[in-house]
Amino acid sequence: MVTDRIAQFQAALEASSLDGIALLPGQNLLYITGLSFHLMERPVVALFMRGETPRIILPELEQVKLKQVVTPLHAFPYGEDAASRQEAFQRAMGELRKARPNIGVEPYRMRFFEMGLIHEAAPALKLTDAGEILVRLRMHKAPDEVEAMQRAVNTAETALQQTLPLVKPGMSEKEFESELTLQLFRAGSEPELPFAPIVASGPNSALPHATPTLRAFKPGDLLIVDWGARVDGYISDITRTFAIGEPPEELQRIHSIVQAANQAGREQVRPGVTCGSADDAARAVIEAQGYGKEFVHRTGHGIGMDAHEPPFILAGNERIMEPGMAFTIEPGIYLQEKGGVRIEDNLVVTQDGHRCLTKYRRELTVLG
Amino acid sequence: MVTDRIAQFQAALEASSLDGIALLPGQNLLYITGLSFHLMERPVVALFMRGETPRIILPELEQVKLKQVVTPLHAFPYGEDAASRQEAFQRAMGELRKARPNIGVEPYRMRFFEMGLIHEAAPALKLTDAGEILVRLRMHKAPDEVEAMQRAVNTAETALQQTLPLVKPGMSEKEFESELTLQLFRAGSEPELPFAPIVASGPNSALPHATPTLRAFKPGDLLIVDWGARVDGYISDITRTFAIGEPPEELQRIHSIVQAANQAGREQVRPGVTCGSADDAARAVIEAQGYGKEFVHRTGHGIGMDAHEPPFILAGNERIMEPGMAFTIEPGIYLQEKGGVRIEDNLVVTQDGHRCLTKYRRELTVLG
Repeated sequence: MVTDRIAQFQAALEASSLDGIALLPGQNLLYITGLSFHLMERPVVALFMRGETPRIILPELEQVKLKQVVTPLHAFPYGEDAASRQEAFQRAMGELRKARPNIGVEPYRMRFFEMGLIHEAAPALKLTDAGEILVRLRMHKAPDEVEAMQRAVNTAETALQQTLPLVKPGMSEKEFESELTLQLFRAGSEPELPFAPIVASGPNSALPHATPTLRAFKPGDLLIVDWGARVDGYISDITRTFAIGEPPEELQRIHSIVQAANQAGREQVRPGVTCGSADDAARAVIEAQGYGKEFVHRTGHGIGMDAHEPPFILAGNERIMEPGMAFTIEPGIYLQEKGGVRIEDNLVVTQDGHRCLTKYRRELTVLG
Repeated sequence: MVTDRIAQFQAALEASSLDGIALLPGQNLLYITGLSFHLMERPVVALFMRGETPRIILPELEQVKLKQVVTPLHAFPYGEDAASRQEAFQRAMGELRKARPNIGVEPYRMRFFEMGLIHEAAPALKLTDAGEILVRLRMHKAPDEVEAMQRAVNTAETALQQTLPLVKPGMSEKEFESELTLQLFRAGSEPELPFAPIVASGPNSALPHATPTLRAFKPGDLLIVDWGARVDGYISDITRTFAIGEPPEELQRIHSIVQAANQAGREQVRPGVTCGSADDAARAVIEAQGYGKEFVHRTGHGIGMDAHEPPFILAGNERIMEPGMAFTIEPGIYLQEKGGVRIEDNLVVTQDGHRCLTKYRRELTVLG
């Protein structure tokens, strides 16, 4: 699989205006080569030049990882001192040191740190945003990738089901978060969760990116749970909104509006339409009920190895949906001081429509 | 506490040659302001100019977080479209758009992405490495920070104790990792672990940064466990090496050498000596026994809010140890194809020596 991927990557490089692409530790390098490193204070830079064996600058103590991969790589290892590191960068840059190559980089990975080391070794080298080339490689999920995402959804849903029976008034957001996290691992998630769960109750549920607090659940609260698992390197990212006891009528009302918006967004998902059109479909439902200003975020984002990746389900996004694209549909309404609702599903575009990976019920469930 | 920190930060900025400092989401911004964001595709940039109210460019839906902090901030929120984001950057840069200010940045955080947005809004702005200014702010831990680190150590040690009774020949590295992860959360770790546990058995233990595999433990194996917890925002990072049944004599021998090197490294820790001298002390023990080439990494790294931060316990590091500095001491010997040993403790420099936060026994324990 990785062999196909590196061939596709080399073809994309040939088709571009770039002389090469530099990758840092992260999902792109893992996807293309199978190599997993951490982004830290010991730099790792893989440099793919057109038609050449890729070069990799890495710490000596990471070198053994190269034996685990089929990709041939020309290694430039360095020791624990700064002089050895600088020398490895210079040797790796080789003939590029005096040239003016145009090297593509990952805009969300490449750091000031590595840029400094690269420019020290090759001052005339030009760095260019290669984000779109890499996005296109990873945006269409193969069947084995979709099945890994389905397992990540199943794991997350199992963990939620194990956690919900413990909910009652008086439980804190943090307690719920701890129990849900524990259940995620028991259900089989890898240790690096896609993100720390969001558990937001009462007025806190009106904050889309709330951090769990010591606030205790109270009757009448809405409770937003936004959580995910990682299985075989792929993530899930789901949201459901619950009630603690009977919530006020307005909060019940916004829940049913968001549920209808979620359905309208999902129903728009199929090959040939724009990503923006699914945002339009979900937003129209909410706007028609007068809550347009309270839907403060886009309708969704791509998912895969990363928790946020293209395509984005965003007003005006003209990118056309194609089979294999995977993303969230997650409309919401947030009433400041009162509470919020978000319902988030994970979908994959298929040949004739879409497959919804999330199965958990969307109706307002009263807990406790 | 955060009020003191922002005053200290402003004083450090005044004492520098910089006109301002730009911070991205991460531990520095959290430490100084109490604000927690994720580094993602929606940029957040906080800009601290000398003697001015700090500015922050952030997504509209993150704006409510500003209410939770005492630091006054001038907010430049943007919506979900690119035009709105560009406009927020331009408004935030204000008078800087036509000036040539020298702005310090975090070398391990600032990305090609944000650099592009900043330069688009203020083309003549110069970015400079401000790493050392920020390092100095966070390197001396206050008593409440040390106590959080102690709790993170206690949590990790409790999780290990709960996991070890399950070890027997035939258990896989991945099974051990899953159980240890689960026990870390049961013992009270926050969801974002400092790093995924390393569980490396038999020949895999010779790889310092091994990823857990499906390899089953066998009698005679060495087993390296390198794990940590996060409690109240602070991390622990511990390693112990075990045996599955009786290991070959050479592996027992390298364990006792590493244990002696760990002790020699710890004993060197006190105010007034260089960080490099603790590396020298540990390395001398291993070199005297003829295994110098098999100790392939530095002796330690700083710990705190990050799992790897200064000071580094590295040959030649002339930084002087001062009270409040916290770091690991973790010598190792790695015999390719056979097995490896690493013993890692967490220490804090005190007024008259050091405090070792880790209590777990270092002697070779036979499991299973």
